[in-house]
Amino acid sequence: MPLFMDVHHGMTGITADQLAAAHRADQAIEASENVHFRQAWADPDSGTVYCLSEAPSPAAVQRVHERAGHKADEIHQVSLMV
Amino acid sequence: MPLFMDVHHGMTGITADQLAAAHRADQAIEASENVHFRQAWADPDSGTVYCLSEAPSPAAVQRVHERAGHKADEIHQVSLMV
Repeated sequence: MPLFMDVHHGMTGITADQLAAAHRADQAIEASENVHFRQAWADPDSGTVYCLSEAPSPAAVQRVHERAGHKADEIHQVSLMV
Repeated sequence: MPLFMDVHHGMTGITADQLAAAHRADQAIEASENVHFRQAWADPDSGTVYCLSEAPSPAAVQRVHERAGHKADEIHQVSLMV
């Protein structure tokens, strides 16, 4: 399954609870799109959130994020990993 | 130890071998800066590389990348993870 790194901007001040709630909202519906969000990292100072997922397509990643209420600003297929 | 996500742009067409060589170059010198690069992901189509590291500071991350010949374009401290 392809891996994707998606990026959210404008999340300045995001808290641990907010990040956890957003991740749970994704996980609650991800199976319907055959997506799995593996991990997410946030920089509250710059307001940047990175999400690593396995998914059939970038559109599937975006559908989960949109339905969960937080559309991604960028979605990159990361076909190489080390 | 703080976690950092750094981003490299302009790496269009990067290959698996090039990503592995860059990662090895970082790992060969990271201890001198008390940095550890955990993982890296690359999107050859958009030319974006993401590196996840543990380090004492963003400056330490950048010193390793610069000495290895590939300065990062952005370095974000990701103080939250889920």
